Amino acid sequence: MNIGIIGGGAIGLLCASYLSQHHNVTVFTKRNEQAEEINTTGIKRTVKGETCRAAAHAQTGITGIFDLLIVTVKYHHLQEVLDELSTLPRQRILFLQNGMAHLLDLENWKTAHSLYIGVVEHGAMKVSDHAVDHTGIGVIKWGAFHHEDTADMRKLLKEVPADFQMIYTDEWQKVLEEKLLVNVCINPLTALLHVKNGELITNPSYEYMMKCACEEALSILGLPEKERLWSHIVSICQKTAANQSSMLQDIVKGRQTERKAIVGYLLKKAQAQEILAPHLTFFNRSLEVLEKKQTKSFE
Amino acid sequence: MNIGIIGGGAIGLLCASYLSQHHNVTVFTKRNEQAEEINTTGIKRTVKGETCRAAAHAQTGITGIFDLLIVTVKYHHLQEVLDELSTLPRQRILFLQNGMAHLLDLENWKTAHSLYIGVVEHGAMKVSDHAVDHTGIGVIKWGAFHHEDTADMRKLLKEVPADFQMIYTDEWQKVLEEKLLVNVCINPLTALLHVKNGELITNPSYEYMMKCACEEALSILGLPEKERLWSHIVSICQKTAANQSSMLQDIVKGRQTERKAIVGYLLKKAQAQEILAPHLTFFNRSLEVLEKKQTKSFE
Repeated sequence: MNIGIIGGGAIGLLCASYLSQHHNVTVFTKRNEQAEEINTTGIKRTVKGETCRAAAHAQTGITGIFDLLIVTVKYHHLQEVLDELSTLPRQRILFLQNGMAHLLDLENWKTAHSLYIGVVEHGAMKVSDHAVDHTGIGVIKWGAFHHEDTADMRKLLKEVPADFQMIYTDEWQKVLEEKLLVNVCINPLTALLHVKNGELITNPSYEYMMKCACEEALSILGLPEKERLWSHIVSICQKTAANQSSMLQDIVKGRQTERKAIVGYLLKKAQAQEILAPHLTFFNRSLEVLEKKQTKSFE
Repeated sequence: MNIGIIGGGAIGLLCASYLSQHHNVTVFTKRNEQAEEINTTGIKRTVKGETCRAAAHAQTGITGIFDLLIVTVKYHHLQEVLDELSTLPRQRILFLQNGMAHLLDLENWKTAHSLYIGVVEHGAMKVSDHAVDHTGIGVIKWGAFHHEDTADMRKLLKEVPADFQMIYTDEWQKVLEEKLLVNVCINPLTALLHVKNGELITNPSYEYMMKCACEEALSILGLPEKERLWSHIVSICQKTAANQSSMLQDIVKGRQTERKAIVGYLLKKAQAQEILAPHLTFFNRSLEVLEKKQTKSFE
């Protein structure tokens, strides 16, 4: 099958590296240098200390018809990708963004494409323009965005390597919400406090602040099972205690964070329901201040 | 009378400018250029749109005997000043620091000097090395640190201009605590959120966070009259709605903030009493992160 992967970040490279074992993969990158590097040297993937190299074609500019297109760009680059996709013939497109803000954009997108949503539960870190570390083996859970047919997709996505399972679920919304909840509890705090994930539960003051954020998010999302979900968040802090969250990494490296996709989305939902979310409002604004300091565009 | 003023910041220049109307004033600055500038051009003070110029002698290196020495440096420069003062003959010294951290340092200071504490309720902004804006006319309330005699000081401090009253109080500790409470509610939040004082009460989420900080500070300081004090804080936000807090100004200008004197002091007191203060802990740490970003020494 022919699979197109849009975006050459950690998740884009991870998908390309695994899926190229059974499929013809084309990677669409933003920068020409990255496309050339992938075409010359292939994609290097390191997992459990072992390294392997996969061949993939790469190019800039999204064109062609594929059995499946996978969009891996971050939310703050999604809109430009949607504009490009609008010019393509009708095909299947799987969206792998973090947070839930992209659902609102897809809802408003007038398109004939068949849309699918996926939730990535892998850990991955981009090492260079052609190399990715698979730091945590998980799965990708996916489902149809509206009422798209899933039979062909299910068949297609059975042919994947053992360390890169693609699991169909009709409860993807719930999976996405729980991942968002974890993200909104861990990411902003670790970025603002400049601490690793584990410190959020070893420092009682930080844990209290995380609990405040959790309660606001639970009420905005209207999620039941509050105790189970809080235990889930704590267990993720334990399992990833030595990790720097993606948002902390973004701040340290001076990159734009996924603030809008994560906190921004929840604040929009809060406003629509007239729910006051002071801690999330505070995190959102002070992250914005910290980001602007970073890029030196602040005053 | 001979008055020595240590520090050439906004409060140092303000004191020198007013007190030189009735007394001989020597200003001790850190940098030689500032001393030279003051010696050449005097000190320019602007108040209610009018400008006047006062003559004062300035120099680096603290020496001599004075009827009164006034220490106006910020808390994070206090220790080096105390070391210099230790070498001087016994005299009266008035300390005008913000926050309350300096009380702990003075408590531990083995000295024969007579120590007095003052609380500055003026608004002042340093315009240049020899110019200060008196943006808000208040008073300085002062008292004896331990059991120092106050008769001579009271007599001395009667001879001051109308816009620069020095008022004796034996309740200076209470005055200092209430000022600290206001500072800890307004300063960290405005600095982290990059907003003017008024926004802390026009945005309900920010007001909620200020209330959280207020409650923690009230409990650490063991202050009664919680409603009156909260109303007092809100009224200060109203009166100074268009102002940038000093901590926000420090962050914007890349200067060290008075974090340690204000939040740091309260957190030490909280720890000693085993009180959990999650919001103040969070403010303290994220201010530290923001300060370090500022000076580019962060990672």
